[in-house]
Amino acid sequence: MHGIALGVAYQGTHFHGFARQPGMRTVYSALLQAVQCMGSDVTELRGLSRTDSGVHARAQVVAFDSQQAIVSRGWVLGLNHHLPADLAVRSARTVPVGFNPRFASLGKRYVYSLLVDPLPDPLLAHATWHVHQPFDFDLARAELEAAVGTHDFAAFRSASDTRPSTERTILRCSVTRNAGDPRCVDLEVEGAAFMHNMVRILAGTVVDVGLGRKKPGTLALALASRNRQDSGRTAPPQGLVLAASQLDWPEGTGEAWPASA
Amino acid sequence: MHGIALGVAYQGTHFHGFARQPGMRTVYSALLQAVQCMGSDVTELRGLSRTDSGVHARAQVVAFDSQQAIVSRGWVLGLNHHLPADLAVRSARTVPVGFNPRFASLGKRYVYSLLVDPLPDPLLAHATWHVHQPFDFDLARAELEAAVGTHDFAAFRSASDTRPSTERTILRCSVTRNAGDPRCVDLEVEGAAFMHNMVRILAGTVVDVGLGRKKPGTLALALASRNRQDSGRTAPPQGLVLAASQLDWPEGTGEAWPASA
Repeated sequence: MHGIALGVAYQGTHFHGFARQPGMRTVYSALLQAVQCMGSDVTELRGLSRTDSGVHARAQVVAFDSQQAIVSRGWVLGLNHHLPADLAVRSARTVPVGFNPRFASLGKRYVYSLLVDPLPDPLLAHATWHVHQPFDFDLARAELEAAVGTHDFAAFRSASDTRPSTERTILRCSVTRNAGDPRCVDLEVEGAAFMHNMVRILAGTVVDVGLGRKKPGTLALALASRNRQDSGRTAPPQGLVLAASQLDWPEGTGEAWPASA
Repeated sequence: MHGIALGVAYQGTHFHGFARQPGMRTVYSALLQAVQCMGSDVTELRGLSRTDSGVHARAQVVAFDSQQAIVSRGWVLGLNHHLPADLAVRSARTVPVGFNPRFASLGKRYVYSLLVDPLPDPLLAHATWHVHQPFDFDLARAELEAAVGTHDFAAFRSASDTRPSTERTILRCSVTRNAGDPRCVDLEVEGAAFMHNMVRILAGTVVDVGLGRKKPGTLALALASRNRQDSGRTAPPQGLVLAASQLDWPEGTGEAWPASA
């Protein structure tokens, strides 16, 4: 058997999220189908992050074990031949059999993008949350700062997330105007692990403060109260992208393509 | 009666182009439906440019006549309320009844975007033509220069275009690396009027030269021969956007919203 880990990117608009769901077009099913098109016996994939319906990724990692001896470059070029335009393999490397990227995660960086403008822009609609002015950029920036560090994020997860521990660590965050398009504001959040909807509720809270719908200090108060009622809206999925991921590659990780990946 | 001209933007991916076509989802039909949702008796729209299926626009102009007295701001905000996420009205102004933007056009600027990379990028797939390296940027830039000026562009139109005159004027063109993403190359072409597929055949020819599939000088030779066989491929639609338009607004053009539009 041979273990393979793929670097995967997708535009989430027309996927029902990453995870396998019977009868649904998901990233998992489209990718598995492409792997099988290469003559493989693979029936199970292991993903780094279960991104939601509509959420995008530049840095998803997906591992599987195959009886085929195919070099990394072969997996990348071969799979892209079988994948639709909204899903691509960007890199591959050989890993030990059974490798699960979720348990090797050192950190993930999410970017949530806003279009701050009085008018909608259809060319950005699939990749931004359109918020109307007046949006107070400085208030939003100050608000997100409170998320940095190790906190109990119980107020920042969806009801569907029932994992016992709600403590997480945010290593870094920022709110910046997009250099290429000053109407766009990017919220970046970097951490080791996240709960379901956590980044989207952080973004929704920050936007609610930036728009004056919630008072400055809401995020810190919700961290303290641990009550979902005290945090803000869940920001819609299309603004979110899994932008980067860092893995603790195990011993036995082998040749990669491209070499720089 | 009141004449209205709208500034319209759309992501063309899921539209069968601009023009009215029975049973098809076109920009025309979606926009007309929104106008009618506002209680209007309008049955005909007049567009600046019949963009193809999959082509995007930031600067389409669409005029119509209505018996309703609605201020420009009302048209913009009201129509956007009824439009899907991939289509928006960005501005409006009052114009003389019967105004046709096509006959008032002073110039249009199209941008054709390439992704020059060994690997596909799903987050750009809807907005770029993916061309593989090695792509010779300098050759491509020199090639497009030959299009500037007044020429017979008979070799640069689709067979479906049967207008008698094939002489057109390109005022300006450029090939630049995208500042925000150096993998992307933008071909810009500005002119008073274009034939069907003209920009896409110009782009295809330039890319064929940049990739070494055609010799440098192909574009100039095809202008001279007037033979479609001598020009390059028709570049796919998703890389093209109608980026700007300049109109000769007639006397009687009135209040606009936003005022800066």
